[in-house]
Amino acid sequence: MPSENSLQELFHDTLKDIYFAEKKILATLPKMAKAAQSEELRAAFEKHEAETEEQIGRLERVFAAIDKKPQAKTCDAIVGITEEGAEIMKEYKGSPALDAGLLAAAQAVEHYEISRYGTLIAWAEELGLEDAVSLLEETLEEEKATDEALTEIAKSAINQQAEAA
Amino acid sequence: MPSENSLQELFHDTLKDIYFAEKKILATLPKMAKAAQSEELRAAFEKHEAETEEQIGRLERVFAAIDKKPQAKTCDAIVGITEEGAEIMKEYKGSPALDAGLLAAAQAVEHYEISRYGTLIAWAEELGLEDAVSLLEETLEEEKATDEALTEIAKSAINQQAEAA
Repeated sequence: MPSENSLQELFHDTLKDIYFAEKKILATLPKMAKAAQSEELRAAFEKHEAETEEQIGRLERVFAAIDKKPQAKTCDAIVGITEEGAEIMKEYKGSPALDAGLLAAAQAVEHYEISRYGTLIAWAEELGLEDAVSLLEETLEEEKATDEALTEIAKSAINQQAEAA
Repeated sequence: MPSENSLQELFHDTLKDIYFAEKKILATLPKMAKAAQSEELRAAFEKHEAETEEQIGRLERVFAAIDKKPQAKTCDAIVGITEEGAEIMKEYKGSPALDAGLLAAAQAVEHYEISRYGTLIAWAEELGLEDAVSLLEETLEEEKATDEALTEIAKSAINQQAEAA
């Protein structure tokens, strides 16, 4: 069945890509937490750092479910997205808009992950990988919740800024 | 009001970033349409190419709304995301999983844009840029519709593949 093999290969490749991405995010979150001006945003980044560790563990279980060793493959997308975040930290250091920029950078990361996990779930379903589907769905729900929490923080930050103006 | 100036600067910077991204996407879509195996996917990419041209026009009107000339600033995120798409086109050429890979790449692009436009709308509201809000919202709705259309194509492609297996 060449068609199924190819989708399996694509699934495996994309798993390596998101495994790299999650590790990159895990390395980036402490820097973002340190840079954040508001306590609320710092706490959100710290919470997501703990979740990201769990998500990496879940990906390792997905690798096991397809009898592969966990392996990371450079994900150009997350490299680019996190570079933009690093630029914001540098260019807006000390600016009252820093947190808004950090929030935007973090939401770009979340949306990339939401897109990737959605794709991986569809493929895992097609490939009949039930355990992988459950693990990936658990992470997708966390990513969506993080994105929503960031949207809430962004709204309250904007309101506070408006009141202070 | 330094805080408002900073948010204005961040809005302008992010506008340059998405302007670059849309132009990059416009250059990439014909390649993706050419690579697509299914007529349906090719048609979706062609439709989105026409929409992207409109979206670039709308961004130029947003620049005008803040009295700036349209200007693009390299967006590392979209460079990375489109590089991943180019890799898929190369590595899965002739494979039955090619369209699935192209769909995933296109959805990663859409999610990046959805995140960026959502952020820009929130900032434009805060800055009182009503015309910009309307223009950006129109584009955001198109991006969401494109993402949904791609999800539908992905589902039907998976079903067809399953039937053929």
